Amino acid sequence: MTENIGFIGLGTMGKPMALNLLKSGYKLTVFDVEGSAIEALVSEGAIAASSAKEVAEKTEILVSMLPASQHSLAAAFGPDGYLSGLQKGSTVIDMSTIDPDTTRQIAQGVTEAGGQMLDAPVSGSSAWATTGTLTIMVGGDRKVFEEQYSLLNCMGTNIIHCGEIGMGETVKLANNLVAGVSMVAVTEAFALGISKGADPKVLFEVMSKASGNCWTLQTRCPAPGVVGDSPVNNEFAPGFMTDLMYKDLGLALAAASQEKLPLALTAIAHEQYGATSRQGFGKLDFSAVAKLLEMNQNV
Amino acid sequence: MTENIGFIGLGTMGKPMALNLLKSGYKLTVFDVEGSAIEALVSEGAIAASSAKEVAEKTEILVSMLPASQHSLAAAFGPDGYLSGLQKGSTVIDMSTIDPDTTRQIAQGVTEAGGQMLDAPVSGSSAWATTGTLTIMVGGDRKVFEEQYSLLNCMGTNIIHCGEIGMGETVKLANNLVAGVSMVAVTEAFALGISKGADPKVLFEVMSKASGNCWTLQTRCPAPGVVGDSPVNNEFAPGFMTDLMYKDLGLALAAASQEKLPLALTAIAHEQYGATSRQGFGKLDFSAVAKLLEMNQNV
Amino acid sequence: MTENIGFIGLGTMGKPMALNLLKSGYKLTVFDVEGSAIEALVSEGAIAASSAKEVAEKTEILVSMLPASQHSLAAAFGPDGYLSGLQKGSTVIDMSTIDPDTTRQIAQGVTEAGGQMLDAPVSGSSAWATTGTLTIMVGGDRKVFEEQYSLLNCMGTNIIHCGEIGMGETVKLANNLVAGVSMVAVTEAFALGISKGADPKVLFEVMSKASGNCWTLQTRCPAPGVVGDSPVNNEFAPGFMTDLMYKDLGLALAAASQEKLPLALTAIAHEQYGATSRQGFGKLDFSAVAKLLEMNQNV
Amino acid sequence: MTENIGFIGLGTMGKPMALNLLKSGYKLTVFDVEGSAIEALVSEGAIAASSAKEVAEKTEILVSMLPASQHSLAAAFGPDGYLSGLQKGSTVIDMSTIDPDTTRQIAQGVTEAGGQMLDAPVSGSSAWATTGTLTIMVGGDRKVFEEQYSLLNCMGTNIIHCGEIGMGETVKLANNLVAGVSMVAVTEAFALGISKGADPKVLFEVMSKASGNCWTLQTRCPAPGVVGDSPVNNEFAPGFMTDLMYKDLGLALAAASQEKLPLALTAIAHEQYGATSRQGFGKLDFSAVAKLLEMNQNV
Repeated sequence: MTENIGFIGLGTMGKPMALNLLKSGYKLTVFDVEGSAIEALVSEGAIAASSAKEVAEKTEILVSMLPASQHSLAAAFGPDGYLSGLQKGSTVIDMSTIDPDTTRQIAQGVTEAGGQMLDAPVSGSSAWATTGTLTIMVGGDRKVFEEQYSLLNCMGTNIIHCGEIGMGETVKLANNLVAGVSMVAVTEAFALGISKGADPKVLFEVMSKASGNCWTLQTRCPAPGVVGDSPVNNEFAPGFMTDLMYKDLGLALAAASQEKLPLALTAIAHEQYGATSRQGFGKLDFSAVAKLLEMNQNV
Repeated sequence: MTENIGFIGLGTMGKPMALNLLKSGYKLTVFDVEGSAIEALVSEGAIAASSAKEVAEKTEILVSMLPASQHSLAAAFGPDGYLSGLQKGSTVIDMSTIDPDTTRQIAQGVTEAGGQMLDAPVSGSSAWATTGTLTIMVGGDRKVFEEQYSLLNCMGTNIIHCGEIGMGETVKLANNLVAGVSMVAVTEAFALGISKGADPKVLFEVMSKASGNCWTLQTRCPAPGVVGDSPVNNEFAPGFMTDLMYKDLGLALAAASQEKLPLALTAIAHEQYGATSRQGFGKLDFSAVAKLLEMNQNV
Repeated sequence: MTENIGFIGLGTMGKPMALNLLKSGYKLTVFDVEGSAIEALVSEGAIAASSAKEVAEKTEILVSMLPASQHSLAAAFGPDGYLSGLQKGSTVIDMSTIDPDTTRQIAQGVTEAGGQMLDAPVSGSSAWATTGTLTIMVGGDRKVFEEQYSLLNCMGTNIIHCGEIGMGETVKLANNLVAGVSMVAVTEAFALGISKGADPKVLFEVMSKASGNCWTLQTRCPAPGVVGDSPVNNEFAPGFMTDLMYKDLGLALAAASQEKLPLALTAIAHEQYGATSRQGFGKLDFSAVAKLLEMNQNV
Repeated sequence: MTENIGFIGLGTMGKPMALNLLKSGYKLTVFDVEGSAIEALVSEGAIAASSAKEVAEKTEILVSMLPASQHSLAAAFGPDGYLSGLQKGSTVIDMSTIDPDTTRQIAQGVTEAGGQMLDAPVSGSSAWATTGTLTIMVGGDRKVFEEQYSLLNCMGTNIIHCGEIGMGETVKLANNLVAGVSMVAVTEAFALGISKGADPKVLFEVMSKASGNCWTLQTRCPAPGVVGDSPVNNEFAPGFMTDLMYKDLGLALAAASQEKLPLALTAIAHEQYGATSRQGFGKLDFSAVAKLLEMNQNV
């Protein structure tokens, strides 16, 4: 396979995802605003581009993986954005987690430039990006989805078509909302139990077998020494950062606000992650929200 | 096995639990404030008692399964309560979900009367009570726990010793807190997704494989037609009633309040179940909290 | 005037209230669980009693001012409680802030003992208790209210009959709910404004003239240096303690819970005062809730 | 006085504000996207313009009063926006309530076009706009503020300089946050009291004299028949609409989010106004939030 793929955004997530494409045999033309990020990929066999525009001029399939809406907008519509160089018939796959309206706005630009677009945000940590086991939620035309399935499959194991353009983002926000809220719920449960003298190992054992079981309990048990690879046992190294969970819950609330849909628990969880970040823990794993309840003061 | 067991409280949960003891070969002396509830058990082979006191006079192992703290207090300390008839060396197993302080207060009375006590609240629905597959969280002396293990095993499959007296209740409240909050989180996620046009089946599929997975999603998916036996597809027949979840979250908040432990998400979820009940849905399964977000208005 | 009045509970509020009765010419027989509190009143001319029972045996009008429901219950129903010594025709005035159900329970005891009862909780600080300018909310028979008006008027300036027994407590809880929530609202507003560079003096001036004006803004402006006698300028000396606001909001929530009335803002404000207390500020004025938003870290 | 003033945005608030300028003797050139809104002003003596650009070409002082950020942006930067016609030395006064960042973005455009800008959002209802008694919060250079004071004074009585550009908006959001939260607090207090049998008139009387007193209580008592001109007695005719309070609290939360400042009460109040609007009451006065607590079901 020697297909030429463009990749824009080579950060914590983008870099291991791009590396997996290289390992799978794709030829890769890459760009990032940080020159050192480009060099790291070039040393693995990628070709450097000097702008998103140049990536578009040299490839017909563009993948982007950027931190937030404004970066996706700039990469598309900015002075040297890829829309200014997009070739007719190109496919853009934006894997960033951004708000669905921005996705649709970019998709319109891509369509007007003669291309087609998928939104394909991911669920999972940078460790999963490295092992190529992300869950990928895809919005856009089903035919385009099927054409790009094998490409996406180099980066993730669960590749799910969620509907028309923007639906990947929508479904991802809905999913992360549950993760964000349930993490705080697990934290409140452990704080309550521990404050009453319960053994955290017993709390974990019972919840695991009962109605309190959830992904966040299994991967992010907030009490030290219970689940070996929970971030609490590794100084809250992410994983998925508090600031990103704060961003995602904020996007969910903004999307809900357009419908005047009241999401009270999401709103409070959002404030809790904000408080966690304000106390200086924004770059830690989002399970650091447990610090608010003073559960780990002796760690 | 012909051991004589007392059973006090033969309601939605107590009745099938008592029946399982009968089926396992125990001799049962039963009491309930409702005469018809006693008769139902007598027709299956149990012996009627006219009061909790009489149960205590005739048996040395007493099981109680009552709705709330005041009922447990009355059954123990009331005019014809079991403490007035308790034989020395008797074991009391209170399987009601009540606040841990009340548990300890009753345990003190039992101890002063020469007996010993376990608190053993359960997790699971009346269907699980019928099939004997409840999770049972037990607090009290480990030796007493081991003595009563085979009895409890007739009613449940996961029997977990959680620590000293009151710890069964504490751990149960912590577990139910997570279930109660995550149910609302799942509801908010589906409401958001559906309001944006997402397919509920896709939402379920993605969350099941990603960080939003949880027990409430799997058993109580709030969108109709997605998970066959979710209460939403059966007019919200419980399962576990909204009013009971409201009670349990209230107990969790009261226990936390003694420690001035702030449980913001639990507090808001508690209000949501209150609002659900106030709208007339208190006897429905707690997943009826989804009605607040108008998700099922066309069901 | 030489009428003989009993007074039970001589703490931060009770002591200055009792002193005002002495100054108004009443003869006073007093009891407190702390001997030193009794001595302080005796040195001002009061007569010591050795129990609440003795107070009841020696006077026909009993005033009580106690911290919480359990103290009011013990003072009435306990081994040496006043009900065991109450004379027929006596009037009990419980000025404690307790839950309305407890009030009605005590009133029933008083009635059965041949007496009559008013609940008469107060609004205002210990400074207002000293100056006799409390607001007093009274529940109970109007005729009894009118008989005791002049007595109450020695302790407060606004004496309002709120309805039948328990309504004094109910109205007080409703009022304090607004004070507790609006204090947090003012705090959030100042935190927002200050974080954006607004001058706290301008924030105060505008809100004072606009829709944000409220009692808590005027008496407890949370930014230092704006309102001279705001607790923030005096190391948060109370005033009305955080722990008492936490208690009152808890009572309001418990009362609402009986009606399954969802009070979401009250619930969150309650948790905020709990968090404030947990951080060690429970004995400070309730405006110390502002410390949660790091507004005063440089004070 | 025959100074020529431009006025853009002639809706519920803008129309009476513009009329007050006419009455004060100013010559007015007006524009609105609705032709009928222009005609209404022309019939009172104003001069019609066909675009914001034309307003800028014909006047040197421009007032705008628009619903939301996107409208202010379009009026300034849009194809026929006023920036394309702005004369050097002109003063733009944007009285819309929008987010402070948008204000600063527009101010930069005005400065680059050689003009100067004030942000001057108002507090008060359309009734106050009619009587010229609004509170006006002004951000921008003090000298420009002083030059425009007499103009602003035709529309409001409290004209307060709040700091540099954007501070008018910031202070307004902080103020409205308190109004929005305290309205819900008052609602919860009345719902609690009424559910327990308290007389709403007594609740109002006590709160008015005690720590629960606030602007929302005095102007928007949520129980029918207590305060004559409260919206509840007039089918919740605004006043200030639920949808606008929802917008303002959303702006406050967005501004706080930039600082990761957690505003938990504001977040919950925001969701409550959203729920009110979603139930179809968005165009009613914001005191219609009381409908959520079923307080007025019999009105």
